[in-house]
Amino acid sequence: MSLTAGCCSVEVPISAPTASHAEALTTEFKALADTARLRLFLQIAQADGEVCVCNLDDVGLSQPTVSHHLGKLRNAGLVSSERRGTWVHYSVTARGERIRDLVLALS
Amino acid sequence: MSLTAGCCSVEVPISAPTASHAEALTTEFKALADTARLRLFLQIAQADGEVCVCNLDDVGLSQPTVSHHLGKLRNAGLVSSERRGTWVHYSVTARGERIRDLVLALS
Repeated sequence: MSLTAGCCSVEVPISAPTASHAEALTTEFKALADTARLRLFLQIAQADGEVCVCNLDDVGLSQPTVSHHLGKLRNAGLVSSERRGTWVHYSVTARGERIRDLVLALS
Repeated sequence: MSLTAGCCSVEVPISAPTASHAEALTTEFKALADTARLRLFLQIAQADGEVCVCNLDDVGLSQPTVSHHLGKLRNAGLVSSERRGTWVHYSVTARGERIRDLVLALS
């Protein structure tokens, strides 16, 4: 596919993601487009194994706000969670691991 | 820095980006957290050289809407623009090139 209309005829090669893939990417970017969520995500994604939500309270946010942000990260498929007794434990997904590596490469 | 309070004492190593860096990252993620902008960005970022805005009208959007999205990409530092006569020409920035490569790696 190329675009040649307009003032000039520069060929614009397009190998954009498919619509469904672009949708997934924008959902992930939306989830990380907030500094608190980005920090929470990196805390989970850089931990060795899973992290108890009780250990994710050092971001200056109330626990309900932290839970809200974690829900967004989970809905975007970046982290998964498991409740054990009182506490919910979070771990990074395989997709989240790839995105973590790319985010850190941009730092 | 590590977090040890709470129900357990798992060490959570944190090498999160600095605040200013996290701010830049979230601005970039916000700019790409929209399928139309993601497509426009990739059209520019995958072109060989600069792209005339007149060649970016194949995304099913009106020209004012395209211009609005391009302004967001420019404000996020992902693309730069130059007006020559009637038309504005866009090219990817060095930072945008890095992000393009990472986005494509996720596809």
